[in-house]
Amino acid sequence: MKKYTVGIIGATGYTGVELVKLLRSHPRIEIAFVTSERHKGKKLKEMFPFLFGSVAALEFISLEEALAVSVDGVFSCLPHKTAVEKLAPFFDQGTSHIVDLSADFRLSSVDLYEFAYCKHERPDLLKESLYGLCEWVGESKTKEYRLIGSPGCYPTSILLPLLPLVEQGVIESTGIIADSKSGASGAGKEPSAGTHFVEVHENFSAYKVGDEHRHLTEINEQLSIVAKKEVNVIFTPHLLPMARGILSTIYVDLKEGMSELEVRKVLLSQYKDSPMIEVLEVGFPKTSWVRGTNRCVIGLKELKGQNKLVIVSVIDNLIKGASGQALQNMNILLDLEPSTGLN
Amino acid sequence: MKKYTVGIIGATGYTGVELVKLLRSHPRIEIAFVTSERHKGKKLKEMFPFLFGSVAALEFISLEEALAVSVDGVFSCLPHKTAVEKLAPFFDQGTSHIVDLSADFRLSSVDLYEFAYCKHERPDLLKESLYGLCEWVGESKTKEYRLIGSPGCYPTSILLPLLPLVEQGVIESTGIIADSKSGASGAGKEPSAGTHFVEVHENFSAYKVGDEHRHLTEINEQLSIVAKKEVNVIFTPHLLPMARGILSTIYVDLKEGMSELEVRKVLLSQYKDSPMIEVLEVGFPKTSWVRGTNRCVIGLKELKGQNKLVIVSVIDNLIKGASGQALQNMNILLDLEPSTGLN
Amino acid sequence: MKKYTVGIIGATGYTGVELVKLLRSHPRIEIAFVTSERHKGKKLKEMFPFLFGSVAALEFISLEEALAVSVDGVFSCLPHKTAVEKLAPFFDQGTSHIVDLSADFRLSSVDLYEFAYCKHERPDLLKESLYGLCEWVGESKTKEYRLIGSPGCYPTSILLPLLPLVEQGVIESTGIIADSKSGASGAGKEPSAGTHFVEVHENFSAYKVGDEHRHLTEINEQLSIVAKKEVNVIFTPHLLPMARGILSTIYVDLKEGMSELEVRKVLLSQYKDSPMIEVLEVGFPKTSWVRGTNRCVIGLKELKGQNKLVIVSVIDNLIKGASGQALQNMNILLDLEPSTGLN
Amino acid sequence: MKKYTVGIIGATGYTGVELVKLLRSHPRIEIAFVTSERHKGKKLKEMFPFLFGSVAALEFISLEEALAVSVDGVFSCLPHKTAVEKLAPFFDQGTSHIVDLSADFRLSSVDLYEFAYCKHERPDLLKESLYGLCEWVGESKTKEYRLIGSPGCYPTSILLPLLPLVEQGVIESTGIIADSKSGASGAGKEPSAGTHFVEVHENFSAYKVGDEHRHLTEINEQLSIVAKKEVNVIFTPHLLPMARGILSTIYVDLKEGMSELEVRKVLLSQYKDSPMIEVLEVGFPKTSWVRGTNRCVIGLKELKGQNKLVIVSVIDNLIKGASGQALQNMNILLDLEPSTGLN
Repeated sequence: MKKYTVGIIGATGYTGVELVKLLRSHPRIEIAFVTSERHKGKKLKEMFPFLFGSVAALEFISLEEALAVSVDGVFSCLPHKTAVEKLAPFFDQGTSHIVDLSADFRLSSVDLYEFAYCKHERPDLLKESLYGLCEWVGESKTKEYRLIGSPGCYPTSILLPLLPLVEQGVIESTGIIADSKSGASGAGKEPSAGTHFVEVHENFSAYKVGDEHRHLTEINEQLSIVAKKEVNVIFTPHLLPMARGILSTIYVDLKEGMSELEVRKVLLSQYKDSPMIEVLEVGFPKTSWVRGTNRCVIGLKELKGQNKLVIVSVIDNLIKGASGQALQNMNILLDLEPSTGLN
Repeated sequence: MKKYTVGIIGATGYTGVELVKLLRSHPRIEIAFVTSERHKGKKLKEMFPFLFGSVAALEFISLEEALAVSVDGVFSCLPHKTAVEKLAPFFDQGTSHIVDLSADFRLSSVDLYEFAYCKHERPDLLKESLYGLCEWVGESKTKEYRLIGSPGCYPTSILLPLLPLVEQGVIESTGIIADSKSGASGAGKEPSAGTHFVEVHENFSAYKVGDEHRHLTEINEQLSIVAKKEVNVIFTPHLLPMARGILSTIYVDLKEGMSELEVRKVLLSQYKDSPMIEVLEVGFPKTSWVRGTNRCVIGLKELKGQNKLVIVSVIDNLIKGASGQALQNMNILLDLEPSTGLN
Repeated sequence: MKKYTVGIIGATGYTGVELVKLLRSHPRIEIAFVTSERHKGKKLKEMFPFLFGSVAALEFISLEEALAVSVDGVFSCLPHKTAVEKLAPFFDQGTSHIVDLSADFRLSSVDLYEFAYCKHERPDLLKESLYGLCEWVGESKTKEYRLIGSPGCYPTSILLPLLPLVEQGVIESTGIIADSKSGASGAGKEPSAGTHFVEVHENFSAYKVGDEHRHLTEINEQLSIVAKKEVNVIFTPHLLPMARGILSTIYVDLKEGMSELEVRKVLLSQYKDSPMIEVLEVGFPKTSWVRGTNRCVIGLKELKGQNKLVIVSVIDNLIKGASGQALQNMNILLDLEPSTGLN
Repeated sequence: MKKYTVGIIGATGYTGVELVKLLRSHPRIEIAFVTSERHKGKKLKEMFPFLFGSVAALEFISLEEALAVSVDGVFSCLPHKTAVEKLAPFFDQGTSHIVDLSADFRLSSVDLYEFAYCKHERPDLLKESLYGLCEWVGESKTKEYRLIGSPGCYPTSILLPLLPLVEQGVIESTGIIADSKSGASGAGKEPSAGTHFVEVHENFSAYKVGDEHRHLTEINEQLSIVAKKEVNVIFTPHLLPMARGILSTIYVDLKEGMSELEVRKVLLSQYKDSPMIEVLEVGFPKTSWVRGTNRCVIGLKELKGQNKLVIVSVIDNLIKGASGQALQNMNILLDLEPSTGLN
């Protein structure tokens, strides 16, 4: 069967190497190149001694060399701002399937982007790109685009349950509180005081409390679209003493007359053809249930007499929250089954 | 200087041995006895080989033997239901200072207790006992009682910030959400599937979501007293992959016209003479800040334009959330400085 | 392509569920049944809510029912003693491929087994079975047997490097010291004081120091065979505050005239056709390198002027040390590529 | 009672802040100054928000300012090379009690120091200083010195059991193997790829295998002194996924005719007046037993028929392995009970 070829721009961080590991056993895609300006000429094995097999022998090339390689698709695992700079030439020269893991193509509003991040060097591309929350957006819509902004980790865990509920009008779009907790790999690979083992281990803390985290922009933009009015979620991320996993505990108001029953029905219906999203009939999921998978598991419960609903959703931040969802998007762009290589 | 003597009923669990460790270096209190029906005759060292010094040589005696020992005070580290049974004879025979670490004397309402726990064998004692949230209740009131129900761990982290704010009318008493996270020692020492290392490690989960945890009864009862109306907090506890520490993220509505400024002022004023409670001028605390201490550190922030306030409080669940606060209560009963032996 | 069917006896422990997870994506083997006397009638999903897809819907059946199902192979994940009891009927009725994960078929000497474990109910089967250390034993020899005793976790990490070195006479067979460290999943799923999260976390200890651990019997038996004399390894296992992974630090004496060069050559030659064993040219491996894989990575170094060699080997105790190696054995018995379903 | 005053040079690392925490509740010593060139003018609270009480308000001063302050003693928590540079002026101006936590005064041989570390700027001071392994060296000898090189963490755990055994001739001084495991705080506070949470967590590895670690110099020098011949220990340190604690598993040969009995007798006799060293009658210690204490606990066992002895010793690397032992040395220099402030 035909194998597609892809390149990975900036493959030295956690999401990059996770993508390499996923693609290693992908039956239909192989890695044509990986780039790193700093490490060009080195083999992947030198940076990641735990790799083995053919991917271990891949050699980092420069971006310039990469642009000359003909591939079916390109992933970028670069940080925001750098991502748009390095991806734009691929887009401009016609690379047909591009998936970016940074924030550079997640927002449709330039203003929101520039408020939360920095100046956007190619605002024209925001119109050409799609927010790639796969199971929400749907395959056919995704295929209309050449450029996908793969969603942030926290937003994935929050939007998958909330978007259908707000759209179907079973919950209020005001007063939503998302109390999220993430493993430390979410903070990236760069060593810092905040990611030192001794600081993270046997410790727990909140950060960017309530209204400060950049991921709020994509959460609010997506919810505002379906609510058809401005939505302002209260969002507090926390740092867990573990490597991987996000759990979001979400508190919402039920619309009058609505109950757990309707909520569950909406979610089950929305995701009935999405094998990687599971809506529990009863109980709540743990992050260990999804560790190492591209799944999102959602539990929910109405607080009787209080008109409140609590939703708990879990993902693996490096897979469904990053590289797995990016690959799922690429699978769709390449007309493959979305879960190919993701089981 | 005179040394007081105390006994510990049921000293084989986490809170019991924590109390032993705290009392080991207490300058004014010494342990007269420790009881355990199952282990009587054994030395503490046999059960807790990490103990050293004089406490290690203490021998467990039976409850019956303990009743014959004249002491200045008695702690109970037994689980609820057993606690009231075993403590009642001490109370009845006139032991003057009793601090219980279970739920048996935390509630003033028998109905609430029986709803959340089980039949109360000595409802008459609920009138003789006080909810021992030290810095809130105050020393003089504490000294009026012979029997103190030392507060639960989660409630301590939630009530210390909330009680003054509700009483002073700076926040609404409706719509309060407490999203709490606790280390695994909070689940006790009994081995179970849920406390197995492989299950807890690199894992995170919610449990008793929203309205199910027994600690809600003491949270709601205390808040209802100061609100002068029924308060129903939404409370979701979570299990952290760490041994000790509780962090509660609390979302409340500001009363009209109130801001972060008033809130901080109320808390600073309430706790100005409480050296073990710290209200941060800026930022939020981490659980590591209070590990191994009897302290509670509180951070807070108003979400501008949303009339919402987020409060984060941290304690060590085994110390301020259990044995430390119990000792603080005993210090007060014995007319000692509350922080004696707790620095 | 033809799919083989296998059954799993006793699939409720860590090794059982690990095997289920491995077989879930195996291209040539499917699970025909899983047994559990205690849970028969329950679905796997009820015990392991993190499972999804077709394996989640499998229902536990009793051993009696299992014996009536025609399958190509049977795994046992039962503890020793029970394993031989429950597997014997399969063997006796002619089941052609049986892999046992307990100690019941690891030793060829009944006396050694009974010294270390307990009375062996079917000593006759010890002659019919093979010690399944795949890469050492070789595929052709494995295929001569119907019954494989899959090696213990510690022995796998110790014997893979040592057997070729002792056989080829590059190291002494006397004075070998294996200082091994294992994650807590090695202690099994049964909750106990020793596996409680609070006990294991932020803690490290040695146990069964020097000459006490049962795994010594298979280590010594295998080494004695190749050394053609009695070998007595000094072996100290330690408990790591992590879930998975074994690292063994092994100290041996080089034979006169031998150096790191010869040692590496022997190992590279022995394992040149074994893609799941990696002998490092330089440096030492970490347990994270093999987490979630069926690999063994080996590093080594001569201490110049001391005639000593230090070897460090790592495996994932639940995969290469248990379920993965068992599956590798089954693959071989079924004439499949040994690594099928193990990448 | 008179309070002594001390200064701390370089108090911003793990050992510095640990010392501050220990001194906070020391009944006879108070901190006169803390220095930091980079942070001078800042309060300790700004760098260590978890501090409270009077130490939190201490302000970092420069070294130059510190030299003008009259104190009873000075600690240095600087790294090697910097330590000797910054401490020499204190020594030269007559500061009477100096304890250094770096390697700069641990060796009596300049050559060994320069082989393992770098050029020594003040070799003359090596003659004026003592290797401060308190319980081994003894109080009276310690008091003869103005300058103490406080031992390394690994060496403390290895030498406390070995020195008396080699000196008394109950074990051979050849063929000693020390397989040591340390928590990540031993690697210091500087963020690096190797101390990133995601790298250390759920991982275990050996480093500087066999003959490479600098601590070998002080281990070998001390043992050579008592053996009266050159000793070369094989020493492999490992990195544990935990914050604090060292466990050393030590394999030695018994001298002919010697047994566990004699070994235990020698250690019990050596440490009979050392309340912070415990030699177990039976069994082996865990690192959790000494976490947060200045204790060393030692277990041992003869392997019958093999003439081998296995010793396991545990310490808290930041306390007995660093700041605690340093304070113990200072207590002795100041004629205080060695354990003052260390219980």
